[in-house]
Amino acid sequence: MGDITIHPIGTVGRDAEDEGLSGAALRARPVRLVLEPEVVDAMLGLEPGDDIVVLFYFHRSDGRPLQVHPRGDLSRPLRGVFATRSPARPNPIGVTTVRIRRIEGNVIEVVGLDAIDGTPILDIKQYEEHFDTPYEQGKD
Amino acid sequence: MGDITIHPIGTVGRDAEDEGLSGAALRARPVRLVLEPEVVDAMLGLEPGDDIVVLFYFHRSDGRPLQVHPRGDLSRPLRGVFATRSPARPNPIGVTTVRIRRIEGNVIEVVGLDAIDGTPILDIKQYEEHFDTPYEQGKD
Repeated sequence: MGDITIHPIGTVGRDAEDEGLSGAALRARPVRLVLEPEVVDAMLGLEPGDDIVVLFYFHRSDGRPLQVHPRGDLSRPLRGVFATRSPARPNPIGVTTVRIRRIEGNVIEVVGLDAIDGTPILDIKQYEEHFDTPYEQGKD
Repeated sequence: MGDITIHPIGTVGRDAEDEGLSGAALRARPVRLVLEPEVVDAMLGLEPGDDIVVLFYFHRSDGRPLQVHPRGDLSRPLRGVFATRSPARPNPIGVTTVRIRRIEGNVIEVVGLDAIDGTPILDIKQYEEHFDTPYEQGKD
């Protein structure tokens, strides 16, 4: 199967004072999705208050190992990374639903993202229950 | 910003008899996520009944245009693709939550995916409300 080349559409900007935060505290802090000028036209229709799905690249991950102890807890049995949300995965792409707080030019300020400063952004999508909640036959 | 190289982890297999179906009828039909032998260890812990998030590549998309009429309906105003789920997007990656029906070796049978036969699969993740439902401050 052929390789696929991805050109990031932007970068996460996070304040230096967030250093040391993790989990819920980190997600509660606003970050900036700073988009490349050439994709600004693709933002038309995004509004403060919208829920969006952000795809980003775990650029510090080397894609290994294939199995991890969930949350790094050695007392928990090994689990395949496809059964987790670990940043260690063959293609280290992260997916998170976040909320838009503000939009200014090519910058979207959001809350709910735990990505670090400098994280490459691969895509942004409108959140849709249809695609983003557990599938039940006949629900759509 | 540097380009990122993605090596697909597998391919979608869909029965020829699904030809011509779309929307809910297409998603209701089971498909096979046929994974590459070298990532099988990453499947440990996945079980029938699990909800998983599948990342795949719209390999028929050329990534353009940046704005579309939602659902191809010319009576609806143009919208940026980041505010839609259109396959036309700068990095044509699709994200859908599906349900596992069966697992046999390197093959995961799921329902809920509308991808066509031969679609490259980029990643599989456990569905987690924490990351996959609208973000509310203080919910986690």
